[in-house]
Amino acid sequence: MTDKSSVGVVETQYFTFAELTLESGEKFGPITIAYETYGTLNAEKSNAILILHAFSGDAHAAGFHEGDKKPGWWDDMIGPDKAFDTSQYFVVCSNVLGGCKGSTGPSSINPATQKPYGLAFPLIAIEDMVACQKRLIDHLGIAQLLSVAGGSMGGMQVLGWLTMFPDMLRSAIPIATTIKHSPQQIAFNEVGRQAIMADPHWNSGDYYDGTPPAKGLAVARMIGHITYMSDASMEEKFGRQRKHTDEPFKFTTDFEVEGYLNYRGDAFVKRFDANSYLYISKAMDHFDASNGKPFQKAISGLNAKLLVLAFESDWLYPAYQSQEIVKACKRAGLEATYCQIDSTYGHDAFLLEVDEETHLISHFLKRVFQND
Amino acid sequence: MTDKSSVGVVETQYFTFAELTLESGEKFGPITIAYETYGTLNAEKSNAILILHAFSGDAHAAGFHEGDKKPGWWDDMIGPDKAFDTSQYFVVCSNVLGGCKGSTGPSSINPATQKPYGLAFPLIAIEDMVACQKRLIDHLGIAQLLSVAGGSMGGMQVLGWLTMFPDMLRSAIPIATTIKHSPQQIAFNEVGRQAIMADPHWNSGDYYDGTPPAKGLAVARMIGHITYMSDASMEEKFGRQRKHTDEPFKFTTDFEVEGYLNYRGDAFVKRFDANSYLYISKAMDHFDASNGKPFQKAISGLNAKLLVLAFESDWLYPAYQSQEIVKACKRAGLEATYCQIDSTYGHDAFLLEVDEETHLISHFLKRVFQND
Repeated sequence: MTDKSSVGVVETQYFTFAELTLESGEKFGPITIAYETYGTLNAEKSNAILILHAFSGDAHAAGFHEGDKKPGWWDDMIGPDKAFDTSQYFVVCSNVLGGCKGSTGPSSINPATQKPYGLAFPLIAIEDMVACQKRLIDHLGIAQLLSVAGGSMGGMQVLGWLTMFPDMLRSAIPIATTIKHSPQQIAFNEVGRQAIMADPHWNSGDYYDGTPPAKGLAVARMIGHITYMSDASMEEKFGRQRKHTDEPFKFTTDFEVEGYLNYRGDAFVKRFDANSYLYISKAMDHFDASNGKPFQKAISGLNAKLLVLAFESDWLYPAYQSQEIVKACKRAGLEATYCQIDSTYGHDAFLLEVDEETHLISHFLKRVFQND
Repeated sequence: MTDKSSVGVVETQYFTFAELTLESGEKFGPITIAYETYGTLNAEKSNAILILHAFSGDAHAAGFHEGDKKPGWWDDMIGPDKAFDTSQYFVVCSNVLGGCKGSTGPSSINPATQKPYGLAFPLIAIEDMVACQKRLIDHLGIAQLLSVAGGSMGGMQVLGWLTMFPDMLRSAIPIATTIKHSPQQIAFNEVGRQAIMADPHWNSGDYYDGTPPAKGLAVARMIGHITYMSDASMEEKFGRQRKHTDEPFKFTTDFEVEGYLNYRGDAFVKRFDANSYLYISKAMDHFDASNGKPFQKAISGLNAKLLVLAFESDWLYPAYQSQEIVKACKRAGLEATYCQIDSTYGHDAFLLEVDEETHLISHFLKRVFQND
C-alpha cells in the first residue's frame, strides 16, 4: 500500500437508476451499476477516462480492497505515472449490466418475485451495457470523456460508445477487439454455453437455492483459457511437462497444462455466475458495432481520435479484426493510429504487455489531453 | 454401385488374437481387430498399403456396406484410379485398438466379467494400436508394406510404424500430423475429456446398462469441430447467418454455426463411445514418436521414402509440426518430400483436398512401386 504507483485502498460504489429501455425494446429496471473511481476529476471535468472490462472482469480495476493482497484486474495500467495516470486523470470503471460483481444481472434479486432473476432476466446487448455506463457518467456530472478504453469485450463497448454517444468522446482506445464476432468466436462461446446448459445443476438457470452448475461452468472456462493463450505461450509455460500425481484414476490430469486448465476452471466457478456467462457471451455474439451497416458510415464525421491496439499471437481476436476498425476509421476520415504489438501471449497480451501498452497509451492520452 | 471409381460393396472382417503386451507392460487380450480390404494382393505380395484412420474413424474407409448410401470415410481417395488405386494396390484399413467400431475397446465385453470393460480397459498407446495392426498384417501374410498412410492421429500411427517396424515399410505418408502433441493440442483434448466426465451419466465409465453421457460427449465433439475447421472456412460456410427458430428459449442456437455444431455434436453421440473418446484422446496426448529422444535418431538409417503433407490453414496440426518431421528425416538421411497444400479448410483439409492429395500421393506411390 506504500507503493507510490498504486491508487491504494479503494471501495466499490453503487449507482441505481429506475429504468432503461433495452435494445430489444423491453423496459427494464431498477438497475444498479457497481463502479470504482481513481484519481480526481479536475475543475473543468475534462480529465475523465472510462475503462471498460472484458468478459469476466468487474469494476475493481485498480488498487486494493481493504484487506486484499491482490489488486484490481488492470492495476498494472492504472495508477500514478502508469498508462492511465491517476495523478492526471480521473479514471472510472464499472461492472457491466448482466454481470455478477455488483451490477444488476441474472443473479440479482428480481423485485417482482424477491428471488434471483435467473432466466427471467431480459436478453441484453453490448449497447445496453454502454447505455448504463452513459447514465453513470451523467450521474458523475461528466459531459465529455477524455477517453474510453478497453480490451476484448471492453473494446466492443468502446466501439459501442463511438456509435452511440460520439459527441461525448474525445478519444477511444479499442484493444484486441472486433466490430463483430466471426463464426469461430461465436462457436467458442456457444460450446461454453452448451457445457453450462449440459450440467443438470444448471436447471434452466434456476440454481441459486441449490448447487450451481460448477462442472459445466468450469469446462466453459477451460475452453476460454485455451483461446486466451497462444500455441507459443502454452509451449513456453507448460511444454509437455508432467505433474506428479498420486491419484490412481486413469483420466486425471497428468500434464501441467491440464492441471492449469482445471485449476483455472475451478477458480472461476468461485467468482462467476453461470447465467451471467450465458447472457454476456450472447451479448458479445450478437454485437455488431454498426448493426449490419458499414462501420465507417456509423462513425463518419466524428472528431474522436482512436488508438487501436492488436497483438501478433492473438488468434481469438486476430489482428485483421483490429485492422478492419482502423480501415473503417480511415475511410470515415477519423484520425486512427494502429499498433500491432509483437507478443507471444495470445489474447491475454492485452493484460500482460504492460510496457508496450503503457508507452503507446500514455503518449496518446497526453496528446489528446493537451490538445485542449 | 455402378460407379467405376468405387470399390463397390464391402464387408468388415475381424481378426482375433490371444494377447498383446502393451506399452505399459500390461498383458491384455483377447483382442479383435475390425478391418476391411480393397483391391487384390499381388502374387509377390508387394502392393499392400495400410491406411490408418484419425481419431473417430473406423475400418470402413471405402466402398459401401450392403444397403448403405454413404461410402467409407476416405472413399474419395481409395478406389480404381484414385489416389490409393485399388486396380493396382491392395489396401487395408483397420479400426484402432480402443475404438468402438468392431475392434476391442472399452465398450467391448470383458471376458472376465461378461460386462463391458468401461474403465477396466487398460490404458493404451498409439504404439499399441500399431502393434495390433502389425499382427493383422502378419495374419494377412504380408512381409512388407508398399506404404502406410494416414492423417491426424492416422499420421501418428504412420510415425509409430516408422520407429517400430521400419523394415516392413517401403514408404510412409504422414498427413497433417505431429511427432508429439503440443500443450495446446493436449489442452483441447483435455477439455473434451472434462466435458464427458462432467456429465453425471458418465458414471465413472459405467454407463453401458443405462443412459450414456450424451451431453458431455456432444460438447466434446463440438470443441473438436471448431478445431477441425479454420476461421476462414467457418466464415465462408456460415458467416453470421441466423437460423430461423421458433423455439422460445433464450439460449437456443440462433446462428447457423451454432446449429451446425449442435448437429455435429448430437450426430457424434449416435456413433461414438464416450470411453473410447477418453482412451484414444489420452493415447494421442501421450504419444511421442521417439519417446523423448530426437526423432531423427529413431529413424536414422531407414530406407523408407516419405511424403509429408500439411495444410496452410490447419491450426490444430500446424504446418510447422509437419516441417519438424521433414527436418528430422533430412537430418537422418531419409528421402522425404514435403508439400504444404494451400487450403482454407483447416485440419479437415486432409479429408477434403482430394484433388491435390490425389495428384501428390498417386505419383509418389507409383514411383515407390516401380522402383522395385
